[in-house]
Amino acid sequence: MEHLEPVWWDGDAVGYVDQRSLPRALERRRATTADDVVEAIATLAVRGAPAIGVFGAYGVALAAQISREPAAFDRDVERIRTARPTAVNLAWAVDRVRSRADRDYLAEAQRIHAEQREIDRLIGEAALPLFRRGATILTHCNTGPLATGGLGTALGAIVAAHSAGKNIRVFVDETRPLLQGARLTMYELRAAGVDATLIVDGAAAVAMQRRGVDAVIVGADRIARNGDTANKIGTYGVAISAAHHGIPFYVAAPRSTFDFALASGDEIPIEERDASEVRLTPDDAVYNPAFDVTPGHLVTAFVTEYGVVEPPYFESIPGLESRPDFLFARA
Amino acid sequence: MEHLEPVWWDGDAVGYVDQRSLPRALERRRATTADDVVEAIATLAVRGAPAIGVFGAYGVALAAQISREPAAFDRDVERIRTARPTAVNLAWAVDRVRSRADRDYLAEAQRIHAEQREIDRLIGEAALPLFRRGATILTHCNTGPLATGGLGTALGAIVAAHSAGKNIRVFVDETRPLLQGARLTMYELRAAGVDATLIVDGAAAVAMQRRGVDAVIVGADRIARNGDTANKIGTYGVAISAAHHGIPFYVAAPRSTFDFALASGDEIPIEERDASEVRLTPDDAVYNPAFDVTPGHLVTAFVTEYGVVEPPYFESIPGLESRPDFLFARA
Repeated sequence: MEHLEPVWWDGDAVGYVDQRSLPRALERRRATTADDVVEAIATLAVRGAPAIGVFGAYGVALAAQISREPAAFDRDVERIRTARPTAVNLAWAVDRVRSRADRDYLAEAQRIHAEQREIDRLIGEAALPLFRRGATILTHCNTGPLATGGLGTALGAIVAAHSAGKNIRVFVDETRPLLQGARLTMYELRAAGVDATLIVDGAAAVAMQRRGVDAVIVGADRIARNGDTANKIGTYGVAISAAHHGIPFYVAAPRSTFDFALASGDEIPIEERDASEVRLTPDDAVYNPAFDVTPGHLVTAFVTEYGVVEPPYFESIPGLESRPDFLFARA
Repeated sequence: MEHLEPVWWDGDAVGYVDQRSLPRALERRRATTADDVVEAIATLAVRGAPAIGVFGAYGVALAAQISREPAAFDRDVERIRTARPTAVNLAWAVDRVRSRADRDYLAEAQRIHAEQREIDRLIGEAALPLFRRGATILTHCNTGPLATGGLGTALGAIVAAHSAGKNIRVFVDETRPLLQGARLTMYELRAAGVDATLIVDGAAAVAMQRRGVDAVIVGADRIARNGDTANKIGTYGVAISAAHHGIPFYVAAPRSTFDFALASGDEIPIEERDASEVRLTPDDAVYNPAFDVTPGHLVTAFVTEYGVVEPPYFESIPGLESRPDFLFARA
């Protein structure tokens, strides 16, 4: 799926797919300024926590190339770092690039990108034993190549199971309000040749009740030390329904999505987005949180590049923290 | 809210509001043939179980006026009766009108309509003690005047509480795929002056978790003897989330929505609607049930024109069955 690469370094700019145009068109654009980078993140042209991290990392390299003076560079980096508040990967990747004392920012961004590909491959490998042959899996939002820059996290795990010949079938929540499931996940699953069925978000519970869903797997934007998981709005309701039906609920995410500084999800800031994403008339009052927080006790297990992380999370998540922050040794 | 009358007898036709055009425009149309009646029901121009019943009742009167011969009339009545499969009110109202030996169909249809108004008023009265002052209530789909021809069932109960000075606040699920919540419920609540906030269906669980929802109230399309309730797709997930948060989940519905012949929801036929309501590209496979069935054990109580019906339903629903089928004595 090389053509689904969401971000790349483009000589003197950061290239990206404008995901707002999918599935209608695959539009490739170039961010040539820090403003472009911030805008692409804020408007969701580039989205998906890991992909935003890779994009932000390239953004720092771009800012370093074009900044006239250190103060302007610092301001640009801070603006990129905070272009969206909920995903931890963005700040993590920006800080990691920035920390290169030798200012070899582009090499570090490329290392983050290469690591993301390897991380996704390892997540897919770790998830394989979780899905039986012929399993029906339900997923929410988009966690494929477009969301990570690699194979994907949750969707990467699904595609890995498909590629291993497991004859997987997938229900895809359309994921209102921005329809990342309908627009992006269906597109990616079609490209991968996986049997996918689109449903409205409100049909997830009846799919579990009547259509034999064997497992749910989703991605994450930020995970606290107790397993509380911020992910796309709607995830929490899916997790409650899965628990009600006794269906395992998995979260696939790299170590960088865990925010080991947070004791619980109560400390995760939840971005509220514009009412215009939801309302039909200007008179409508709207509550539009972009994410919700699923309590750790509803998560059956996390699937990471270091393997499956199971409860009790107060033991296993610190165990994950003790693993290397970077997958590859630094040059 | 006289202007929100969804159906009425119009001399030599059945008048109706084409609800597909709301909230953009309030378009009034006339059904002058049985075909028109069937089409308005099948395309959801007229929707909401009680309103479909009233509309179908007028449709029988219309068919009797224009039919040349009994066989044609019988065919027209059968087509109206089965224009949508899930709602029980339609067949109930058509059969009731048809049963008038003296062929005084119009008077019977008007009696059904007048009864519906009184039923809604009584439901609103019965629901009053369920909502505390300042309560935050969540609802799904549309159950107001447009759905019933009266004040509404679940929404009628909300408006009645508002009118009683209870300072009610409402979260409204947009209700994909056809957005009856966003299009119709928000419109009706605005007309009634109720504080309403629109959310995507996937945000119902986080509204319960973080925004202090005190109660959920929804309507129903068909209720079995054990309390299993067919209602708009998404209702089941809302009921599971309400149970998870310990929030009461009420179903407001007239006696005519109870199908006393059905032992459980397993026997309720679930209409699957066209994929085009959901898919973004012609290649998308779609599972699009219009309704789901919420098990009776998730329903805290039913609110009917005969009062609040509480568990155990194997006792209380037969008790409801023993009450009069018609609210008014027949002329």
